[in-house]
Amino acid sequence: MEALKLAGREKQGPYTVVEIDSPRGPVRIGEGYCTVIAGPCAVENRDEYLLIAQTLQKMGVHILRGGAFKPRTSPYSFLGLGEEGLKILAEARELTGLPVVTEVMDTRDIDLISKYADILQVGSRNMQNFRLLEEVGRSDKPVILKRGLCATIEEWLLAAEYILSSGNQKLILCERGIRTFESYTRNTLDIGAVSAVKKLSHLPIIVDPSHATGRWEMVRPAAKAAIVAGADGLMIEVHPYPERALSDGKQSLTPDNFARLWVEVKKLADVENKHY
Amino acid sequence: MEALKLAGREKQGPYTVVEIDSPRGPVRIGEGYCTVIAGPCAVENRDEYLLIAQTLQKMGVHILRGGAFKPRTSPYSFLGLGEEGLKILAEARELTGLPVVTEVMDTRDIDLISKYADILQVGSRNMQNFRLLEEVGRSDKPVILKRGLCATIEEWLLAAEYILSSGNQKLILCERGIRTFESYTRNTLDIGAVSAVKKLSHLPIIVDPSHATGRWEMVRPAAKAAIVAGADGLMIEVHPYPERALSDGKQSLTPDNFARLWVEVKKLADVENKHY
Amino acid sequence: MEALKLAGREKQGPYTVVEIDSPRGPVRIGEGYCTVIAGPCAVENRDEYLLIAQTLQKMGVHILRGGAFKPRTSPYSFLGLGEEGLKILAEARELTGLPVVTEVMDTRDIDLISKYADILQVGSRNMQNFRLLEEVGRSDKPVILKRGLCATIEEWLLAAEYILSSGNQKLILCERGIRTFESYTRNTLDIGAVSAVKKLSHLPIIVDPSHATGRWEMVRPAAKAAIVAGADGLMIEVHPYPERALSDGKQSLTPDNFARLWVEVKKLADVENKHY
Amino acid sequence: MEALKLAGREKQGPYTVVEIDSPRGPVRIGEGYCTVIAGPCAVENRDEYLLIAQTLQKMGVHILRGGAFKPRTSPYSFLGLGEEGLKILAEARELTGLPVVTEVMDTRDIDLISKYADILQVGSRNMQNFRLLEEVGRSDKPVILKRGLCATIEEWLLAAEYILSSGNQKLILCERGIRTFESYTRNTLDIGAVSAVKKLSHLPIIVDPSHATGRWEMVRPAAKAAIVAGADGLMIEVHPYPERALSDGKQSLTPDNFARLWVEVKKLADVENKHY
Repeated sequence: MEALKLAGREKQGPYTVVEIDSPRGPVRIGEGYCTVIAGPCAVENRDEYLLIAQTLQKMGVHILRGGAFKPRTSPYSFLGLGEEGLKILAEARELTGLPVVTEVMDTRDIDLISKYADILQVGSRNMQNFRLLEEVGRSDKPVILKRGLCATIEEWLLAAEYILSSGNQKLILCERGIRTFESYTRNTLDIGAVSAVKKLSHLPIIVDPSHATGRWEMVRPAAKAAIVAGADGLMIEVHPYPERALSDGKQSLTPDNFARLWVEVKKLADVENKHY
Repeated sequence: MEALKLAGREKQGPYTVVEIDSPRGPVRIGEGYCTVIAGPCAVENRDEYLLIAQTLQKMGVHILRGGAFKPRTSPYSFLGLGEEGLKILAEARELTGLPVVTEVMDTRDIDLISKYADILQVGSRNMQNFRLLEEVGRSDKPVILKRGLCATIEEWLLAAEYILSSGNQKLILCERGIRTFESYTRNTLDIGAVSAVKKLSHLPIIVDPSHATGRWEMVRPAAKAAIVAGADGLMIEVHPYPERALSDGKQSLTPDNFARLWVEVKKLADVENKHY
Repeated sequence: MEALKLAGREKQGPYTVVEIDSPRGPVRIGEGYCTVIAGPCAVENRDEYLLIAQTLQKMGVHILRGGAFKPRTSPYSFLGLGEEGLKILAEARELTGLPVVTEVMDTRDIDLISKYADILQVGSRNMQNFRLLEEVGRSDKPVILKRGLCATIEEWLLAAEYILSSGNQKLILCERGIRTFESYTRNTLDIGAVSAVKKLSHLPIIVDPSHATGRWEMVRPAAKAAIVAGADGLMIEVHPYPERALSDGKQSLTPDNFARLWVEVKKLADVENKHY
Repeated sequence: MEALKLAGREKQGPYTVVEIDSPRGPVRIGEGYCTVIAGPCAVENRDEYLLIAQTLQKMGVHILRGGAFKPRTSPYSFLGLGEEGLKILAEARELTGLPVVTEVMDTRDIDLISKYADILQVGSRNMQNFRLLEEVGRSDKPVILKRGLCATIEEWLLAAEYILSSGNQKLILCERGIRTFESYTRNTLDIGAVSAVKKLSHLPIIVDPSHATGRWEMVRPAAKAAIVAGADGLMIEVHPYPERALSDGKQSLTPDNFARLWVEVKKLADVENKHY
């Protein structure tokens, strides 16, 4: 493994806990915490988003998610609401007091997105979009860096190094499944990546079991596995009506199923001494 | 997915619990249990094996493992003690009262191995050795069928179908990691395979975190993840002196590290209502 | 790469050419040759097999193929005609004067198969069935060792080492595609494996473009690529009526399409100075 | 496979030949041609680049390559000379009369790069950088779209669809190897992708055997395989002193080795009736 100047962890060294400002005070992600990010894949319309945001806030979710600029395999798919979606996210933020995270796909969009969002997400497909890494590295917003679909752990940590060396230390890694030969699941959750990152790096790591499995009924066991394997949090897709979601419906939980997951995860977080 | 005549599970249908006879009474593997199989990769010498067997028995391990016929990538590696190893296994069985499992690599060896062992293991490399599947399917010994290195879940369940359709219903599946592009770990634990198998099949499924990770320091978090993801048990390599093991030393736990793992796993088994 | 005692090639060292006895004199596979093995996936019935055998012989095919014992993913698929299939192969051999190759799946079948066939094939699923490798290594029949579905080149050469170190030097390697994430093709032909093996080993290497692609219309370009990349021969599935083949119909060529392939391959063999 | 509105090929429909303007008249890439792009991985210094450019021009290379903005796994590697590199490319263009291709990594750089280069390359890591695809799709420069490291053929063609639907029809696909479990080679050349693309799409497809293999001694057989498998051209790394290249030295050919490759490729192009 290539030397990590900034992302690496010295033997037995301390872990970084990232603080995210929000109307209700700081939200923390890092060792000792079990922080949950939830929401629909994409912001699809105002009323539905505000409703699900309030529901999730009442359930104890810490951070809201929702895509405004969506990277989609086909140019003919729903590509997100753009700035209109960002405004809805900001409204949900006001309403709930929770910070919001959304994806940034282009260096030219960072300023716009930063006006509305609390956390910038770099998606899997852009994990080695090095210019984007440098630019979010110059931002003062916390960044979630998802692992690339076929990125090794080493390449992922070197991508993190791009952000850190550009000046931004508020960085969170997110394991979201890798591509393998198995076709039953959308991706293969690399649960070992969690303990590998905990050994190699001081950075917080969360897990996205929704993309990792691609099947809603597998999200709960995967989320539980992530927490006891050492993850510092979860990013989960929740949609009020998964069957008519414009993207990722098959992997989205209903609020009820999310509630069940959250109850079970909290029991495990207690065993593992993680705050939530 | 191709139709599973015997391995499949009807919606909400019951799960199979396999009973293994032993001097101390039946050991069970299946839904509601957290059964632990432990021992060194290979039986290397009598005194050491008997000692570790007793240590593991005192710690509450349910089944002993140890290879007598070893499948090794190179013909110049240690290939196991053969029948001498089987005799040591049988002696450990007498001494501890625990059932023993060992690998069978050839149809011609089944009778010999069955004289000494309580459970027959079909290894990853032989998951599609269909003649071997048919022959262990005609045996009255319980069988552990490890997933092939690059077998899909469907192919694994169809391999199970070979055994079941040959007459043997005492079958346990074992997820042990799949081959991917990631090279930091020896294999990639497919934690999602556990919940997939629980949905698709009534068969018990256990996890081998030692082979799945290939690194002893990653075995504990992987084992914990397996249990909360729904696995019915674990198969773990424990060696008194991992640094001088003749095979798989890097992934073997010391007895002390195994003890720590077992304490933590039992806490999670309690949360999940699994007997141990 | 682990040291290869018998399979390795010294720098600039000579290549091995394997000779296969046949009624019409020896058939050679190795550097400088372009040897073609063809025939249906499985021997399905006597009349059809004898007819296709004669057709292929007239086209200049060097060796006939046909499975009598078929490894199939599901136990409920057509598993081959067994000894009856072997007898048909032997009859085709008499009729055409061409040597025949068929797969051996179990150590117990080697003697039986050796009574009828000229070459023993070890299939992908059994590449690490080490007992089988040892036993064919004790045979005096030439052996074709197919690469495992997810075997590295190193593992493949070490499997070859099992056969060579058991005494049999008449060994031919066969690249037949590896398993990757790509699902458009059945497997991914690793064309680079040909030149890698030519660098690392003195053993002959042929390519099976039928399994590698899984689509008949892709077999011809893959076969041509194999020859100019350095392969010493081809193994190709040809069936008189692919649409009603009991296995692998989608990847089987009609005799007419095979004829077209063979014309184009011979032109390239001329450029590459390979005998056929 | 999802429907391709613009990239798809109707049954037996015509193929597109892309014309690239250059001081010496148009260079064509597409069915019936064997067009060769060559040059060092990165533009490292003026004198060396101009020298290799002239050497390659004399050998009959059609297009020059050279990176000015380099995507590198680590931020501490050589990242290219930037605009200085572009100027050197333009000088080489003047000197040789050959068109030049260079990589674009960021939407903000397109205008700058378009001032100097004749063809814009979108690299593997950016194959799903959808904003970049849209922007090069609005350019009037021809584009080479490399396949992502773990992109399926379908995803690749849908990425092409982004460019085509944005208005730019001068699009060339480039297969450059995919990521698999095999570690002997840097990547695995998916030679089957060539015939798959030829069936599914009307777009030209070339092959980069340098990245696909990662080993200079394997570049020649891979290049030859590509041409007979149906590729419309090659992109090859040639460096005057591979052992001191700042990137990709191991996979770069010396001019002498390139000359040998080109002689052999031309013989095959003659057999295949491809112009060069």
